[in-house]
Amino acid sequence: MSMITVSWEDPVVRGRLAGIRQRAPFIYGVTNYVAATLSANVLLAVGAAPAIGTAPGWPEAFGGSAAAVWINTAALMSSSPQDVRRVAACAHDAGIPWVLDPVAFGAGSAEYDRIVLGLLDFSPAVIRGNASELMALAGADAGGRGVETAHGSHDALRHIQTLSSQSRAVVAVSGATDYIASGATIFAVKGGDVRLTRVTGAGCALGALVAAFLPVSDTAAEAACAAHATYAVAAERVQAVGTGSFAVGLLDELSVLAGLQ
Amino acid sequence: MSMITVSWEDPVVRGRLAGIRQRAPFIYGVTNYVAATLSANVLLAVGAAPAIGTAPGWPEAFGGSAAAVWINTAALMSSSPQDVRRVAACAHDAGIPWVLDPVAFGAGSAEYDRIVLGLLDFSPAVIRGNASELMALAGADAGGRGVETAHGSHDALRHIQTLSSQSRAVVAVSGATDYIASGATIFAVKGGDVRLTRVTGAGCALGALVAAFLPVSDTAAEAACAAHATYAVAAERVQAVGTGSFAVGLLDELSVLAGLQ
Amino acid sequence: MSMITVSWEDPVVRGRLAGIRQRAPFIYGVTNYVAATLSANVLLAVGAAPAIGTAPGWPEAFGGSAAAVWINTAALMSSSPQDVRRVAACAHDAGIPWVLDPVAFGAGSAEYDRIVLGLLDFSPAVIRGNASELMALAGADAGGRGVETAHGSHDALRHIQTLSSQSRAVVAVSGATDYIASGATIFAVKGGDVRLTRVTGAGCALGALVAAFLPVSDTAAEAACAAHATYAVAAERVQAVGTGSFAVGLLDELSVLAGLQ
Repeated sequence: MSMITVSWEDPVVRGRLAGIRQRAPFIYGVTNYVAATLSANVLLAVGAAPAIGTAPGWPEAFGGSAAAVWINTAALMSSSPQDVRRVAACAHDAGIPWVLDPVAFGAGSAEYDRIVLGLLDFSPAVIRGNASELMALAGADAGGRGVETAHGSHDALRHIQTLSSQSRAVVAVSGATDYIASGATIFAVKGGDVRLTRVTGAGCALGALVAAFLPVSDTAAEAACAAHATYAVAAERVQAVGTGSFAVGLLDELSVLAGLQ
Repeated sequence: MSMITVSWEDPVVRGRLAGIRQRAPFIYGVTNYVAATLSANVLLAVGAAPAIGTAPGWPEAFGGSAAAVWINTAALMSSSPQDVRRVAACAHDAGIPWVLDPVAFGAGSAEYDRIVLGLLDFSPAVIRGNASELMALAGADAGGRGVETAHGSHDALRHIQTLSSQSRAVVAVSGATDYIASGATIFAVKGGDVRLTRVTGAGCALGALVAAFLPVSDTAAEAACAAHATYAVAAERVQAVGTGSFAVGLLDELSVLAGLQ
Repeated sequence: MSMITVSWEDPVVRGRLAGIRQRAPFIYGVTNYVAATLSANVLLAVGAAPAIGTAPGWPEAFGGSAAAVWINTAALMSSSPQDVRRVAACAHDAGIPWVLDPVAFGAGSAEYDRIVLGLLDFSPAVIRGNASELMALAGADAGGRGVETAHGSHDALRHIQTLSSQSRAVVAVSGATDYIASGATIFAVKGGDVRLTRVTGAGCALGALVAAFLPVSDTAAEAACAAHATYAVAAERVQAVGTGSFAVGLLDELSVLAGLQ
């Protein structure tokens, strides 16, 4: 297994972040209302132009015209399965790359899991999640507890390779070290910050950030690596007294990295 | 064309803000879940009493009893067209002034646009949006990209006059300078802060703030001017290292202006 | 009437908070989208593991497997009455304790109030709200204005005793002093901070926090007292320049109390 380490020190990562600011890509997402505000603010912090949600006609209008799309399946708490599926279909039909974030997959709802699996029909460019979700999606018996993982990212390594081969998507798992599988190749992004697990939607917002890197990167793997590396360094740089100021600081550091303070 | 400049230095603006704190008006809104929290917090920061959303019976109960109402049409991502329309109808029938914020009007969904247009039947007191949305609503071919404008506020000047004349509503556009049209009269509020465009829902929350000024102002134009001038000075005063602390600082400065820290 | 004062100085309160961190209980909630993010962040700040919302199958899967559940009835703005009722039924059937937060009960919608009343069939362990909501639930004519109370917590004293006897739930009211009724016994938690009323969802998040204390406490009364006492001291310790930094500081202080900064 080849393992390539990626970090903020890599000029490609910096270049792609600068590309987002220069091009201000329109990124359309469907996500859950717990994470929606932070996800939009993460995208704005780096200079992307987000729109979120499935108001009437938006799946077709925005799903088919954005520079990239992300689907966080916990969107199903306020969007219909049909609308979420339509977003994936429109992005797929228009050749627009999209990110699948299968929140709470394998955590206990067979009905929910079926809807999530159905989205794989529309060929996501990247699948991003925590270890339990991705292991479950790869067919392992590894369901998490609600939206929390029951496994470390290292446990998921061979499963994300399997899932990447099966789905032909890049698969990225968050943890103490983040791993990104592109077929058999594994990229590692160090510096995952445990404080990210204490801010609701911080993982979800990373899915949005991956989408923002897609239109300015050469490959989906590059986009996923650049997003994870940018997020990791931003998190690491935050000086906070607790979980509240950490969330604020995360946005600050992202915007400072992007030169948008 | 007469153009009147309004700012925080105007004692009427300060007086109206003090009026909100004194009367703590009940302001009912339907809005999207990306912007809802910030909108409620902006209202609380100046001493108003917000309620948001279309739980069963709320459109009638709150739409018909609030001191003012605002409708952000991206509410359609989780409220039905019938419920949103009912809020407008109840406010209208009870003689309660309301603000229309036609988020993403003209951005590509004909179905969505039709629902928004239908709300004009219920005579909003103020229509507030970005340049693309208001130009599209005035009949110009000017659709934005998702929720983002493709035009500066100055481009929208004659269109907001047209829209104000057609709809008999005060029409307010945000931008580097904010303009408020009341028929042929134009008010200008300087000092729009570009950092406001990097916080999700900052424009949406301004719509809520306009609603809060309505019950304590003599005219809808006065309310819109006072809200825009208050928001502009609050934004300008924020000292922030990035987009996260800017959002926090915006609420702080609003509450300090209102004497509610 | 016996009245027992509870505060952060009580070693039981500190012990229960430490218990949350040690056991990281899975807490499932249905709540409104205005308050959801803050509620999740309050739970994460003290070390609990929250999941929120009614995506397909989640009411059964999570309502029947969590360590505790909370239902904020303003969830009805984006969850169906059936789904909300299913969460209560699943928790009840599995013997999982749950918290009812009857937001805006008695504020004007008979349809909404009927749905809320129906949830009492499933025996909440704790009912938490503001004075107007709880007085109305106890049968008094005391409806608030939207989500705001029209009464002080002291006005609600005898009503929460009545409601506790009727429902066999612990009943907790927030105000300048918080009172918790367990049958005829009343516990008082001093130090309610007026700044909490200027952050949207701060009351709602307290309902979530009560749920987090349930699985680590001996009784529901102990859990409610410990949650209120923890929240009060966290609020009191916040140094803030306005309402924005107060909200951030509240999370910081909670996480510092829990040793999770």
